[in-house]
Amino acid sequence: MIYNLVKIIDNIIGFKTAQAHCDIPCKIYDPSTAQLAALSCVRLMDLIQEIEGKDDMRVADYSQIARLVSEKESASTEVKEAVSVIWGDYFKEPQFEQVPNMHRLAHNIMVQASKCKQNIDRKEGEALVELVNEFAEAFWFTKGVGVYRVSCPYPPRLDVVYPDLKG
Amino acid sequence: MIYNLVKIIDNIIGFKTAQAHCDIPCKIYDPSTAQLAALSCVRLMDLIQEIEGKDDMRVADYSQIARLVSEKESASTEVKEAVSVIWGDYFKEPQFEQVPNMHRLAHNIMVQASKCKQNIDRKEGEALVELVNEFAEAFWFTKGVGVYRVSCPYPPRLDVVYPDLKG
Amino acid sequence: MIYNLVKIIDNIIGFKTAQAHCDIPCKIYDPSTAQLAALSCVRLMDLIQEIEGKDDMRVADYSQIARLVSEKESASTEVKEAVSVIWGDYFKEPQFEQVPNMHRLAHNIMVQASKCKQNIDRKEGEALVELVNEFAEAFWFTKGVGVYRVSCPYPPRLDVVYPDLKG
Amino acid sequence: MIYNLVKIIDNIIGFKTAQAHCDIPCKIYDPSTAQLAALSCVRLMDLIQEIEGKDDMRVADYSQIARLVSEKESASTEVKEAVSVIWGDYFKEPQFEQVPNMHRLAHNIMVQASKCKQNIDRKEGEALVELVNEFAEAFWFTKGVGVYRVSCPYPPRLDVVYPDLKG
Amino acid sequence: MIYNLVKIIDNIIGFKTAQAHCDIPCKIYDPSTAQLAALSCVRLMDLIQEIEGKDDMRVADYSQIARLVSEKESASTEVKEAVSVIWGDYFKEPQFEQVPNMHRLAHNIMVQASKCKQNIDRKEGEALVELVNEFAEAFWFTKGVGVYRVSCPYPPRLDVVYPDLKG
Amino acid sequence: MIYNLVKIIDNIIGFKTAQAHCDIPCKIYDPSTAQLAALSCVRLMDLIQEIEGKDDMRVADYSQIARLVSEKESASTEVKEAVSVIWGDYFKEPQFEQVPNMHRLAHNIMVQASKCKQNIDRKEGEALVELVNEFAEAFWFTKGVGVYRVSCPYPPRLDVVYPDLKG
Repeated sequence: MIYNLVKIIDNIIGFKTAQAHCDIPCKIYDPSTAQLAALSCVRLMDLIQEIEGKDDMRVADYSQIARLVSEKESASTEVKEAVSVIWGDYFKEPQFEQVPNMHRLAHNIMVQASKCKQNIDRKEGEALVELVNEFAEAFWFTKGVGVYRVSCPYPPRLDVVYPDLKG
Repeated sequence: MIYNLVKIIDNIIGFKTAQAHCDIPCKIYDPSTAQLAALSCVRLMDLIQEIEGKDDMRVADYSQIARLVSEKESASTEVKEAVSVIWGDYFKEPQFEQVPNMHRLAHNIMVQASKCKQNIDRKEGEALVELVNEFAEAFWFTKGVGVYRVSCPYPPRLDVVYPDLKG
Repeated sequence: MIYNLVKIIDNIIGFKTAQAHCDIPCKIYDPSTAQLAALSCVRLMDLIQEIEGKDDMRVADYSQIARLVSEKESASTEVKEAVSVIWGDYFKEPQFEQVPNMHRLAHNIMVQASKCKQNIDRKEGEALVELVNEFAEAFWFTKGVGVYRVSCPYPPRLDVVYPDLKG
Repeated sequence: MIYNLVKIIDNIIGFKTAQAHCDIPCKIYDPSTAQLAALSCVRLMDLIQEIEGKDDMRVADYSQIARLVSEKESASTEVKEAVSVIWGDYFKEPQFEQVPNMHRLAHNIMVQASKCKQNIDRKEGEALVELVNEFAEAFWFTKGVGVYRVSCPYPPRLDVVYPDLKG
Repeated sequence: MIYNLVKIIDNIIGFKTAQAHCDIPCKIYDPSTAQLAALSCVRLMDLIQEIEGKDDMRVADYSQIARLVSEKESASTEVKEAVSVIWGDYFKEPQFEQVPNMHRLAHNIMVQASKCKQNIDRKEGEALVELVNEFAEAFWFTKGVGVYRVSCPYPPRLDVVYPDLKG
Repeated sequence: MIYNLVKIIDNIIGFKTAQAHCDIPCKIYDPSTAQLAALSCVRLMDLIQEIEGKDDMRVADYSQIARLVSEKESASTEVKEAVSVIWGDYFKEPQFEQVPNMHRLAHNIMVQASKCKQNIDRKEGEALVELVNEFAEAFWFTKGVGVYRVSCPYPPRLDVVYPDLKG
């Protein structure tokens, strides 16, 4: 990860992360919205898969699929929107210097979120969670906030990057 | 019904229903939006059930199910939102005194509307209509407006609580 | 009103209002949504006018204007949408025969709702309520349901056309 | 087409198309939004039909149907809304004189867009595209802008009416 | 706090927090959405207050007020919706036993969020953040997850209740 | 412009533009939506500026500002969303090779659209139109479709890049 490298250099030469102007006049940026939405994708894929196992599909099952797919569609869209806002509004030159691969990472999230719309395969969802975690890690790095990884306290209980605020 | 009891006492001791401040500076509250949405849930369940009877399901049928389920989802959400607004914005201390079980009733409607999302069983929809009727009855009671029950003038032609405005 | 004329003839020759096919496979049509929204326009105009009287305007007042204008915008849009749906989905040849001026009436409502967006003058709001009442009258006529007019049970307490369902 | 007739007369007697006041204080009207949405309906019908051919339907297929139907629903709604706005906001007396059948045409588009929601038959979609093309032709006529027809540069590659702006 | 009392008893008698069924078949509940939205209210109030200090207000300033008020309106609505969903979908009998004042707390948040819509006074925003923190504390308690309070890593840098996931 | 260079080379060596897979299974991509929205920003800025000239501002004027600002906000958001969709869904490796500066261009549009939200200065709007024109030019280049520039047929009558479809 290029920003891990930057992070090390950052620690050595005491480079100050630039953030002040980026928060004015804008919203409160937090990647947790995108992370929650990515986790929802995986969760909904799991619920869709449960129906796959059924022998005899009825109208109630098709109805349930329609509901879950619609929710998965919304969750994938929310990932895209939440990442677009942070990439488009918060990331400016100083942040791009700290995270040189950010354009690529943001675009990869768009592509992966589309795959999560087009598929019901859990692996696509897990890949989305991982990309959004990477995005969160980069974001918190530009804010000078450390992170840790731990399983989220609800299904699908995947590893999530959280800011280390407890001190 | 606790508020029927209050209503009787109200008639005896001439207690004045409090409403003035609740309408300022807020919107025009009317439970008819929630009632229409609840009726739509039942109607859509009926249309979904019509497909259940088919021998040979085709893509056109799955498509129709997806449409009807999506509408049912919206109608259930609209019930929740319309009830939340009246419960959250209009109901204050004076109204809670008149309808002591309102928190419970509002919460029951949330739970029942979720059941209508998760199921295609008409009985769940009828239960939602009944709860929302009860809510409308309570609302109009706090406004000092009498009500009557009559079959609505369109399918699913269930009994609906209307304010008695004709005088 | 042309449909009042039709109504009289209808009463004489026992012409049967056609409605059955219009309700399948569609939503439950009810002009009350449009009527509520039109009343909200007037109510919001009244609240905006209250600020007009103030001597010394502060940021809190400009903020309140922005809120009320945004709500008025939404209410006007809701009138347009609710009328468009009934005009576009429910009205077919049999209804147009019963209400020959319906295209004109629907269009007038669009124009008047736009005026309510562009103005804060109560008279424009009252004109919208009146047009939507006329629309409701025409709608219930095509359903073979009688109507009555009475002041609505909340501000702005204007006359509203209600279906006469009590029997 | 009645407005083609008007167009010829217009060319002979040099009648000036009226438009100035209609653009103030409103939005920038352009039928291209409605045309794009109508094309999307046909495209989505094509994608839905591709699944029809499959022997063995699985949950992934039902999921895909649900997605495509939901998009088709949105596209049909967008046609309705885009046409409603131009019909309701831009068309006033001078334009109705130029296009006397506009009420009928706008209503036909509403009806046809509903058919595109209820069906997956490409012919319904093609009929919608044709009606919206006719609407675009009428619109540009009232603006005094010539048009040409050419296949759109993406699937479903149907003929689309474009304004002739190149001069 | 009543649930702090329950918490103590819980620790003594080893009562197991009930959660399993509440997560099926529903969404991933997380109060962080409501907390972020409440913080945004305060932030936007601060930005609105900055304009209050200006001597000479111009159209650009009124425009900025309109933008900030609209965002504040959205943020307040988001608090209401996020809390309504958790209260209405996640909270069932076992959770109400653990947090007996939950109906009251949820309703207080609705009322306070409305105050944040009607006012630009920071104190109303701070009160909302505090209520939503209390809600988050109650939520995590029912999940058996400990919490800590720390200043959020962006303006308005108020204390926020976070789940203690690091272990 | 890097893609103008590529275009020349393209003409010389007969390089075939890659597009087939990008249109499946996705929507019909067309930058005209983004262009219309960018033009609306400028138009709304013009309407806002008209109020600036007034001597005596009244509540009706503040109301009008609030409306216009809200529309400008929506138009700017629509630019962002329409560009995000094409950048995120349609642009893949083959297109990035043809338009190497696309990440930068897409990001610049996000930044400029935010400026159009924060300002009422027409120059910011014109800069947005220009960037979106550049985006449209790049898009049509990847589709192998030529373009021309001409004043749009409605206010603000700025130059717009159109695909050259007439042949």
